[in-house]
Amino acid sequence: MQTLKVELGERSYPIHIGEGLLDRPELLKPYIAGKQVAIVSNATVAPLYMERLTQALAGYNVLPIVLPDGEAFKNWETLQLIFDALLTARHDRRTTVIALGGGVIGDMAGFAAACYQRGVDFIQVPTTLLSQVDSSVGGKTGINHPLGKNMVGAFYQPNAVLIDTASLNTLPERELSAGLAEVIKYGLICDEPFLTWLEENVDRLRGLDQVALTTAIERSCAAKAAVVGADERESGVRATLNLGHTFGHAIETHMGYGVWLHGEAVAAGTVMALEMSARLGWISEQERDRGIRLFQRAGLPVVPPEDMTPEHFLEHMAVDKKVIDGRLRLVLLRRMGEAVVTDEYPKEVLQATLVADYRALVDQLRG
Amino acid sequence: MQTLKVELGERSYPIHIGEGLLDRPELLKPYIAGKQVAIVSNATVAPLYMERLTQALAGYNVLPIVLPDGEAFKNWETLQLIFDALLTARHDRRTTVIALGGGVIGDMAGFAAACYQRGVDFIQVPTTLLSQVDSSVGGKTGINHPLGKNMVGAFYQPNAVLIDTASLNTLPERELSAGLAEVIKYGLICDEPFLTWLEENVDRLRGLDQVALTTAIERSCAAKAAVVGADERESGVRATLNLGHTFGHAIETHMGYGVWLHGEAVAAGTVMALEMSARLGWISEQERDRGIRLFQRAGLPVVPPEDMTPEHFLEHMAVDKKVIDGRLRLVLLRRMGEAVVTDEYPKEVLQATLVADYRALVDQLRG
Repeated sequence: MQTLKVELGERSYPIHIGEGLLDRPELLKPYIAGKQVAIVSNATVAPLYMERLTQALAGYNVLPIVLPDGEAFKNWETLQLIFDALLTARHDRRTTVIALGGGVIGDMAGFAAACYQRGVDFIQVPTTLLSQVDSSVGGKTGINHPLGKNMVGAFYQPNAVLIDTASLNTLPERELSAGLAEVIKYGLICDEPFLTWLEENVDRLRGLDQVALTTAIERSCAAKAAVVGADERESGVRATLNLGHTFGHAIETHMGYGVWLHGEAVAAGTVMALEMSARLGWISEQERDRGIRLFQRAGLPVVPPEDMTPEHFLEHMAVDKKVIDGRLRLVLLRRMGEAVVTDEYPKEVLQATLVADYRALVDQLRG
Repeated sequence: MQTLKVELGERSYPIHIGEGLLDRPELLKPYIAGKQVAIVSNATVAPLYMERLTQALAGYNVLPIVLPDGEAFKNWETLQLIFDALLTARHDRRTTVIALGGGVIGDMAGFAAACYQRGVDFIQVPTTLLSQVDSSVGGKTGINHPLGKNMVGAFYQPNAVLIDTASLNTLPERELSAGLAEVIKYGLICDEPFLTWLEENVDRLRGLDQVALTTAIERSCAAKAAVVGADERESGVRATLNLGHTFGHAIETHMGYGVWLHGEAVAAGTVMALEMSARLGWISEQERDRGIRLFQRAGLPVVPPEDMTPEHFLEHMAVDKKVIDGRLRLVLLRRMGEAVVTDEYPKEVLQATLVADYRALVDQLRG
């Protein structure tokens, strides 16, 4: 087991990473203040792990809350099911909410914990690679609104994060790849040597090699923990974590939530950010192609949806949270392993990036 | 004008109190970061003050958001109207939300500000006495749930509070009295000399004497600011501010939100807390009666609803946020001017308090 600490003053918390941690309740118990525990999961994950986690918490008054599965349910109506269950079971303000599932469950259970009686204790037990390396770290919680993704939410830190790498054994291959998109992202934005490691290990990761997975998760969480510790509320450097997300959110919004997985949209979106960085002359075309190839080897889409026009992108990006007083700030690569957040670019370069022929770009890679 | 400061480290903020402050935008402008401002008000207050505040903010991009009036609308559906308006107008994360109205508007606009894009700037412009002396100070925001009052919300501090005492000139008499319930509360829990001042000035307050109002508001806010500054998240002393609220919430829940005004329920609830404190021998019956008389002179109910049984009270109090692991903690008076939060009392005394004949108690005061 490896343990990282996210440094946030009095709200610092540990991330435990290792195989079989679901069966080690002594890692959770120091973070549960009362007798009441609510485990929030979904209809896919609950049959796999709910009983095991409930048994590990013998002696507590455990309330299982099972939500429908999918990004399409990341909305107020589903969140309300959590409040309904907590209130019906008379959970008081000393209850502890545990998120058992992927990013959607973590975001919703975290937001519910942030709001229930104005805030109760919260623990993350992420079971997907994406949530293990991304959404479980850093305290972003929330739900979608019909007019935009993650538009309603809170910054709310968990008391602890428990990552059982063995839970990836039941994860669909497509979701494993989606998680790798964020792993690759850390290499691109702040850790160039990690890119090289990934190029050497991507097949092992896809083959569920537990040692490689532990390393990748630990290194990803450490990168994110460092960035979040330096800038909890995303006034500066934290925004670099959104590499590919502005383009990616536009893709998700255009396609309808849940049609593309978040990591898939981030991969295609990051390819667009690489293309724009290359057009600005900040990285070379070879470096851009290096990124594209790694995403491809991870089993990810590298081309935006065929029917998306530049107008579609601009329309959806204009309500992105990174818009400051009408200027569109983007995360781009100053060089491989170093991201910047900037609105200082010629508008024509953004336009050229939106109309670029990504299919041709990818075809040429095969040659 | 008087200015208080609520001390909360980097989240400290000023409270400006005085006549005609709505026409002094220079007090607001230092707290507005971007160009976008959303003023959240209701159908009663907006016709009175929305245009004036909008004119004071000439030069900003002002979005008026007018909600239906009343505690019955303090729910998710109404909150959603704020998010809808902000997103439709493409307000970004640098927008500033201003609450213009009473406690319901402050709670909802504050919760919307806490959640919109995970938190935007927030200013309170309370226009009722209740919100001026209570809900605008301290950062409690939220909405009601069908199963309980204020069950969903956030601790979220405003950047500034602007209290124009002249706005009380348009306040219905019944609501002025409801506000006085919280004013009297401060005397009871932490400022015995203020009780004496109130006994001498309650008629002037009800007559809208601006000098007396300014003093009462300033002293109330100072009391609350001191308590909140010492205990922002209500782990200890802050809970004393809830004197009368546990009984009062039960009354509000039983009657249906909005039938009794919050301050009215608090007045009757506080009489019950006085009665229980007297039964415990902590205050004398004369002191209890002193409190009852002051509430009566302020135009407030001092007897719970006739049809409420002890069972009704216990049922509604069991989901109160002050329940810790099944023990019912109550705010009681150790002596006049000193409240305590405690679950150490014989259950029989609570039972006797619930069955006490308050009507007879009040009748005897007339004799």
